[in-house]
Amino acid sequence: MGATMQALVKENRASGLSLKQVPIPTAGPDEVLIKVRSSSICGTDLHIYKWDAWAESAVATPNVIGHEFAGIVEAVGENVSSVKPGDHVSAEGHVVCGVCRACRSGNAHVCPHTRSFGITIPGCFAEYAVVPASNIVLNDPSLPFELACLQDPLGNAVQSVLAGEISGKSAAVVGAGPIGLMAVAVAKACGASQVIAADINDFRLHMAKTMGADHVVNSRTESLADQLKALTGGDGVEVLLEMSGHPDAIRQGLEGTANAGRVSLLGIPASGVELDLARNIIFKGLRLDGITGRRMYTTWYQVKGLLESGRLDLSPLITHRFRLEQYEEAFELVRSGNCGKVIFMHA
Amino acid sequence: MGATMQALVKENRASGLSLKQVPIPTAGPDEVLIKVRSSSICGTDLHIYKWDAWAESAVATPNVIGHEFAGIVEAVGENVSSVKPGDHVSAEGHVVCGVCRACRSGNAHVCPHTRSFGITIPGCFAEYAVVPASNIVLNDPSLPFELACLQDPLGNAVQSVLAGEISGKSAAVVGAGPIGLMAVAVAKACGASQVIAADINDFRLHMAKTMGADHVVNSRTESLADQLKALTGGDGVEVLLEMSGHPDAIRQGLEGTANAGRVSLLGIPASGVELDLARNIIFKGLRLDGITGRRMYTTWYQVKGLLESGRLDLSPLITHRFRLEQYEEAFELVRSGNCGKVIFMHA
Amino acid sequence: MGATMQALVKENRASGLSLKQVPIPTAGPDEVLIKVRSSSICGTDLHIYKWDAWAESAVATPNVIGHEFAGIVEAVGENVSSVKPGDHVSAEGHVVCGVCRACRSGNAHVCPHTRSFGITIPGCFAEYAVVPASNIVLNDPSLPFELACLQDPLGNAVQSVLAGEISGKSAAVVGAGPIGLMAVAVAKACGASQVIAADINDFRLHMAKTMGADHVVNSRTESLADQLKALTGGDGVEVLLEMSGHPDAIRQGLEGTANAGRVSLLGIPASGVELDLARNIIFKGLRLDGITGRRMYTTWYQVKGLLESGRLDLSPLITHRFRLEQYEEAFELVRSGNCGKVIFMHA
Amino acid sequence: MGATMQALVKENRASGLSLKQVPIPTAGPDEVLIKVRSSSICGTDLHIYKWDAWAESAVATPNVIGHEFAGIVEAVGENVSSVKPGDHVSAEGHVVCGVCRACRSGNAHVCPHTRSFGITIPGCFAEYAVVPASNIVLNDPSLPFELACLQDPLGNAVQSVLAGEISGKSAAVVGAGPIGLMAVAVAKACGASQVIAADINDFRLHMAKTMGADHVVNSRTESLADQLKALTGGDGVEVLLEMSGHPDAIRQGLEGTANAGRVSLLGIPASGVELDLARNIIFKGLRLDGITGRRMYTTWYQVKGLLESGRLDLSPLITHRFRLEQYEEAFELVRSGNCGKVIFMHA
Repeated sequence: MGATMQALVKENRASGLSLKQVPIPTAGPDEVLIKVRSSSICGTDLHIYKWDAWAESAVATPNVIGHEFAGIVEAVGENVSSVKPGDHVSAEGHVVCGVCRACRSGNAHVCPHTRSFGITIPGCFAEYAVVPASNIVLNDPSLPFELACLQDPLGNAVQSVLAGEISGKSAAVVGAGPIGLMAVAVAKACGASQVIAADINDFRLHMAKTMGADHVVNSRTESLADQLKALTGGDGVEVLLEMSGHPDAIRQGLEGTANAGRVSLLGIPASGVELDLARNIIFKGLRLDGITGRRMYTTWYQVKGLLESGRLDLSPLITHRFRLEQYEEAFELVRSGNCGKVIFMHA
Repeated sequence: MGATMQALVKENRASGLSLKQVPIPTAGPDEVLIKVRSSSICGTDLHIYKWDAWAESAVATPNVIGHEFAGIVEAVGENVSSVKPGDHVSAEGHVVCGVCRACRSGNAHVCPHTRSFGITIPGCFAEYAVVPASNIVLNDPSLPFELACLQDPLGNAVQSVLAGEISGKSAAVVGAGPIGLMAVAVAKACGASQVIAADINDFRLHMAKTMGADHVVNSRTESLADQLKALTGGDGVEVLLEMSGHPDAIRQGLEGTANAGRVSLLGIPASGVELDLARNIIFKGLRLDGITGRRMYTTWYQVKGLLESGRLDLSPLITHRFRLEQYEEAFELVRSGNCGKVIFMHA
Repeated sequence: MGATMQALVKENRASGLSLKQVPIPTAGPDEVLIKVRSSSICGTDLHIYKWDAWAESAVATPNVIGHEFAGIVEAVGENVSSVKPGDHVSAEGHVVCGVCRACRSGNAHVCPHTRSFGITIPGCFAEYAVVPASNIVLNDPSLPFELACLQDPLGNAVQSVLAGEISGKSAAVVGAGPIGLMAVAVAKACGASQVIAADINDFRLHMAKTMGADHVVNSRTESLADQLKALTGGDGVEVLLEMSGHPDAIRQGLEGTANAGRVSLLGIPASGVELDLARNIIFKGLRLDGITGRRMYTTWYQVKGLLESGRLDLSPLITHRFRLEQYEEAFELVRSGNCGKVIFMHA
Repeated sequence: MGATMQALVKENRASGLSLKQVPIPTAGPDEVLIKVRSSSICGTDLHIYKWDAWAESAVATPNVIGHEFAGIVEAVGENVSSVKPGDHVSAEGHVVCGVCRACRSGNAHVCPHTRSFGITIPGCFAEYAVVPASNIVLNDPSLPFELACLQDPLGNAVQSVLAGEISGKSAAVVGAGPIGLMAVAVAKACGASQVIAADINDFRLHMAKTMGADHVVNSRTESLADQLKALTGGDGVEVLLEMSGHPDAIRQGLEGTANAGRVSLLGIPASGVELDLARNIIFKGLRLDGITGRRMYTTWYQVKGLLESGRLDLSPLITHRFRLEQYEEAFELVRSGNCGKVIFMHA
């Protein structure tokens, strides 16, 4: 009987998680075994914990969950030469087919055959994890594990900000959760003329200021559209980064976007959203980009480049650190929204 | 008392038009007086005729209507040196401020201060029309007037098709009105791998075949989304050209668009449209472009280049020709939908 | 001792080739064995035949040469599931590392670790060929083998033409060899307003007309720069497709390109080229793109889409067909320049 | 006889300048009269002072020279409503025709009919200057005049840096004159992963460090190509900003650029430059952009946005300030190269 490890497992198709001992996985010929050193909780993990309609439709059980991590290579499969034991690594969590049109045309991030690390295949809230060698991303050993594990959500933020021009342009980040807060910092690091952050949670708005927002708007107490216009001489913002998924916020954000502006849609609405396409998109000549995952691997290189630039400091974003054993406390905190990024420190 | 001319005038803020004698306009210092030779009826003109909610909100009265035309320069203002009497010309109908950020950044087509020829200022359904010299577009004298007057709506089609890559890609044109039919021909002329046209009117679907559509779908009797997938090996189309403005067609079109595809939204919905942003835009990584008017004047050069290429023949699109006196019959025909483009032959 | 096959081999690092029996190769776990049905001679093959300085620096010996082909899958390695015996296929000849920054950023076509089919590893002028499964491109069985084998050079032409906007723009193709002739047809199929072809060989200029050129210029007897301007109202062409590699032609082409135009550089100069950067690139605001290979695999999809469009007919380009045994005659013909594309019909 | 003002005039087609009294100009109907408050010396002004071959070919005499300035509107022509007396302003120095294809297609910066402020028409090294209203750019009154006058060369730097992607990418600035130094700061402000500056003048390299360069290379004593590779893990830089115009530096810079990289060419070589197009552009798949002037007016908005971002501080760049009377000393200093930007403080 093989060695076992501690892992956070979704066992039943209902609310909750289990911390239990499971076998340590082994790397196949084209795979890599990694000792996880830091991981972080994504909003997706909370959906899995709570087990909502999306989770029911998308998550395999039983499964080790978690997909944001950094660690050290422990062993590699026989065909793997691109990494070696001892390397500091993270990984792209979308495991794609590699042969479909999307994969072969620079759009692997929307491969229709994607398997998802920590969602449909075993993930990283454990002592060890296995990922295909093709998905490994090397980290500089000087990059702290707890910052390195943030590269996955940072990639979402970077893809959103860099889906078009940002340097010298005004931007609004609507929804100041962890990815929104990262987007604030990324937009500033890329030379946005001003960055306005909006949310309904004052804790998060305060964090947005810390991350570099020039202005914050509490969209529960103020008109977001009016504020976006007022702060931009009446024109509206040139770049709208929609990270709330909330129908009203989406509509207000579009209303507050300048003619010929662009919009990155990343926040996931819980259901349908009614839009005034004529007034808010067509007559304005807006461009919208749906953002999912990270471009493989263009976005990862942008992430690394921005971290190297010295203009992007994510450390204030990490507000809490837990051990895996404290998972209930950690998830409860994420649920409250009164936190930045919540980290698991692995053994 | 000055000379008069025949003109089609919106006199009252209610249904209908009047054919009457009005003074021949004179060109100001920076303007051009044109003898109109051909004009054509746009869907917008029908909205003005019928006087719906949009017309009530947007149209000045009394006003000479009509904005699609070709003619010959009769006289020019004292500051005008870019055109001269005898030149064959058409004109961009958006008269913009020239000094706002949109105008100075290559986005004059969405200038917030736009005045619209034939809508808020006098138009072309008349013997003569006046336009600012900056809006004049020179026509090759060999281009027949009745084709030259189509350049305005052709510009909408061209901006839609060329908002991103088209050569070698599959495309669907949803809504086979005149601009949709032009878009079919433009997409084929630009090397689309296949063009699928959809409508609920069989006359228009027949015309779509004439204009070069490889396949047609009657979306009243077939599932548009299913057909778009079936005709593309299950992937969906890479380019969706939305020209219907109909909520169901928009949703079906998005459903039938491939991951990482792009969408040009040109059709104007009568009211709000509920969209499944997560499923149909975000997770697919789609890009949407709101299309209005023509890029000033990039689109006009593309229009002329495509006409010169010899690969774009719009003549089958002209199904009916009338004199201004026959305007009631002409508008009734446009209202029926059983026509291509309807032309006024001016005296 | 295994079965053998006929193959055209570069044995010695000197002029000439040998037709000889060699072992039929076997497919490794991730490879595919293909029965070659048609292949075609590239200018590169002539360089290898003649053994010039480039060949000395770049070609492995002994090696089966040839890289443009179409055939039928005979057998696949144990890990291969993306193709199966009986499939009609061609292949990308750049065998790349897959793990470097270029490969992971959408730029595999310039992977610094590229191995080249038919140049540094065994190629296709033989009864059978082996290629990595990742490089296989599926062909529609209805596509004739002799057209399917042209997709490799067609990809060079397509990448050149579609490196930027072409629809509605004027273009010049300088150098009417096979790729140049394909570029003429591609530019027309993509809606170029006019295509001007230039060469010093009247046979090729005649073929350029056949492939759709609107105008041809014999740059030995006429000033290319003057003609490009004269045919474009004095402005110069908006798109220059440089496929000659000849210093004078490059300079004349740049001189005849319009301000803000773009240039695809594909032709390989034999040595350094002196350019007036200030006058011909900087003050004009030109953009230049170096073109090599085919984007993997974006260009291949564009190639297939254009072939499907029905607007691109390459059949007039094939002027001669030979059996492998007639290789001396075939290479002599290519050397003369008095041919379009020269095909080998395999057993 | 009208009022006069002090102005720096090129009187004779030979070396030198004259400080003399000339009539104060008056604004035509579409023009603006400005009281100049700060101006700065461009390399172009030094060419005019020295009177080299370019100056002989391009400069009108007699003419008030100088084109980089900031001031306050004194009076406006009768047709001007976009600015008013008291406004703080600068101006684009390219006075374009507005009606040619380049002007109407978003490429006015390369209008073939350009007249140049301070070169072919009177400029700003004077108490007052007149410019067309269309060329006026409004400044925030809080922006110091001596920073505001730098927007013209800053625009060159911004157009160079933002001709393609920069955020998260490595960049080299070759040639650390004033525009190169600005490009260093702009690239850092836009999130370049690292910026390497090269020059042969240690004073300028020291300034490059001050402006934010991560590394500097003295290309007289070190191999620029080798250093660019060594500092980027062997790949070469992803973005080359060529601002030297020196043939060896251009070649070394291209050699040190990564495959699939991009190059902005701004420095003006004195004569032809021999390039190895095959090795350094084509096989690498590089893209080159010729940079001249500023995009009208996209670049100006980017300039203003970057100044507003708070991430771009140009004040260390201003090393010397003079009065117009001290022009000989000022030009001698610029000629030496041992300075950053040299400012004239106007009365």
